[in-house]
Amino acid sequence: MEAYFDNSATTAVYPQVVELTNKIFTKDYGNPSSLHMKGIEAERYLSDAKERIAKILKCDKKEILFTSGATESNNLSLIGSYLANKRNKNTLITTQIEHPSVSQVASFLEEMGVNVIRIPVDEKGIVDTDSLYDALSEDVFMVSVMGVNNETGVVEPVGDIASEVKRRYPDIIFHSDYVQGFSKYKLYPSRNNIDLLSASAHKFHGPKGVGFLFIKDKTRIKPLILGGGQQNNMRSGTDNVPGVAGMALAASLSFENASVSNANIKKIKDIIKDGLLKMDGVCINSPDDEICAPHILNVSFMGVRSEVMLHALEEKGIYVSSGSACSSNKKEKSSTLKSMNLSMQRMDSAIRFSFSENNTIEQALYLLEIIEPLYNQLKKFVRS
Amino acid sequence: MEAYFDNSATTAVYPQVVELTNKIFTKDYGNPSSLHMKGIEAERYLSDAKERIAKILKCDKKEILFTSGATESNNLSLIGSYLANKRNKNTLITTQIEHPSVSQVASFLEEMGVNVIRIPVDEKGIVDTDSLYDALSEDVFMVSVMGVNNETGVVEPVGDIASEVKRRYPDIIFHSDYVQGFSKYKLYPSRNNIDLLSASAHKFHGPKGVGFLFIKDKTRIKPLILGGGQQNNMRSGTDNVPGVAGMALAASLSFENASVSNANIKKIKDIIKDGLLKMDGVCINSPDDEICAPHILNVSFMGVRSEVMLHALEEKGIYVSSGSACSSNKKEKSSTLKSMNLSMQRMDSAIRFSFSENNTIEQALYLLEIIEPLYNQLKKFVRS
Repeated sequence: MEAYFDNSATTAVYPQVVELTNKIFTKDYGNPSSLHMKGIEAERYLSDAKERIAKILKCDKKEILFTSGATESNNLSLIGSYLANKRNKNTLITTQIEHPSVSQVASFLEEMGVNVIRIPVDEKGIVDTDSLYDALSEDVFMVSVMGVNNETGVVEPVGDIASEVKRRYPDIIFHSDYVQGFSKYKLYPSRNNIDLLSASAHKFHGPKGVGFLFIKDKTRIKPLILGGGQQNNMRSGTDNVPGVAGMALAASLSFENASVSNANIKKIKDIIKDGLLKMDGVCINSPDDEICAPHILNVSFMGVRSEVMLHALEEKGIYVSSGSACSSNKKEKSSTLKSMNLSMQRMDSAIRFSFSENNTIEQALYLLEIIEPLYNQLKKFVRS
Repeated sequence: MEAYFDNSATTAVYPQVVELTNKIFTKDYGNPSSLHMKGIEAERYLSDAKERIAKILKCDKKEILFTSGATESNNLSLIGSYLANKRNKNTLITTQIEHPSVSQVASFLEEMGVNVIRIPVDEKGIVDTDSLYDALSEDVFMVSVMGVNNETGVVEPVGDIASEVKRRYPDIIFHSDYVQGFSKYKLYPSRNNIDLLSASAHKFHGPKGVGFLFIKDKTRIKPLILGGGQQNNMRSGTDNVPGVAGMALAASLSFENASVSNANIKKIKDIIKDGLLKMDGVCINSPDDEICAPHILNVSFMGVRSEVMLHALEEKGIYVSSGSACSSNKKEKSSTLKSMNLSMQRMDSAIRFSFSENNTIEQALYLLEIIEPLYNQLKKFVRS
């Protein structure tokens, strides 16, 4: 049996999305910037895609910008806000548990002279809001807090934080990297005082290489990629019509299925979690259910290094992640687990299981069947 | 009959490429950053893709960087070189006929305080090399000259220019936007002293939303998009495996077919050109064959505005472009034709035909059959 439990790294594309992209690849392949019918036809795909996503976020379709993925969306959010506001503001507030596509950009801006404040988290991974609010000032151009952590699944109260930030300083731009949240939660950015919200198609069964950024109307932000002036000058380059249309269809499909598939995913997670907790030496690093995304389960198998467990499971056809697969700096310690003050041993043995609607209860049971003898064997191996 | 003569705007994707991307979408969908087999499998697609493209450019596979398209490649080239060299150099030399993804970035850098020199062209559109060499100095960090102009098809002698620039100032980075040249010409950047070379998959029957940048080993350049550290920290973001693999296959296929398909394309162009030249009031804006790409033909139908002709042809199932479809600033005058000092009337009536291996001689004959009566009718309409 095969069990792909690495869906926070990436997901398989929906068959319906494949069908749609194929049609665009070969038949409706026009360039939306062309003035003739084939261009207009292509433009319609973009417009429909914006409408689909805007409907999900309950926002205006003009507020959706297409990008090459959430990494670009995050880069654009931070650098674009900096460029638009640098004349009178020079402080960026973010957290200690951001994805590298936020944290690395923050460090880049720091090198450029920006004052970057990184707010710590508690042992569950929840951002210390008191510290965050204390750090606010007229000099802050942006607060960036991720929605759902990619390593542990902890859900930050971004709507509450954004609202409090805006209450104190209405001009501060609030950004949220929502890559692991979109399609799992219904978050309406405008109603929650969020100005910028990033997402990536391949995390919800869409194609790789495409994402979007919600940009609330009138947000002060400059483009990162310049050229032909596509998308109202906010993101130049020939529009990725098949990617964008595929992403929007994937978004619709995953939201249509959300209540059923989230419940299934949660059931799979519960079965695995309950089974693992019966085993000696297992620690759950993900927080309690109320503050954890349904599809992520981070677990330490004490005494067995993550990579050893990962490859042992792989041999049985079970695919998981050690920490975050979004980073190719594969040897680095997880910044999230470190910020949660976990012991070195616990960090070194952390495994992330992440689920999607393609997973089954049979796969969960298969994992449980495999893992107890495997873990006992690996522990012995370490001791000998 | 339908005749899509707008292949410089974008092309239909090869069926073999569609097949490959489908396989990756649904079966081999792993994230190359994942440590397990599905990640390694995905990584292999990237590695194979680099090998394919490196073979075509006769370069090292490490010198190929994947991007979201040539617009990103061009932005990265200019901004990345600026960031890496700004401590001791502050001049950028480019030309007056660049694509907006170069010219707009140059203007952005100018706003940041960079000294930008834009070299003029002659009436054929060839860059004034004397002016260019005169402008060289120790302060220049980059010379950027496009390979094939997207509006007229004029071929710039980039290899010669790069070699002369390097002879005088070995440290200057030479960049070429080669979007309209790749797959039409065999240009080996290293042997021609070119440090950076941009291309885009959807111009040679690959998918939209993916491109590459050749970066000669040891070139001083910094990344534009930061994050997980993919591609040796030069371009973060989950690698677009289906896009990249599809692009590389499209590149291989178009180079395998190049000699036959270029000859066919040239034949189609010749038939159209010869036919049009027999008509009163037609001026060819593309230069002579020796210095013109085989797939682009820019023609003015004097007395009839571009858009009028474009839509009249569209009604007959013939798709062309007025100026460049890469720019969504659809109303702006073409910078290339303006730099060539064409009359206002000639610019206003310019139409670009651009061909691919999907076009047929029948389509060319159909165009010629349609266009003479159409043009005569439209001319009358203008006069009345």
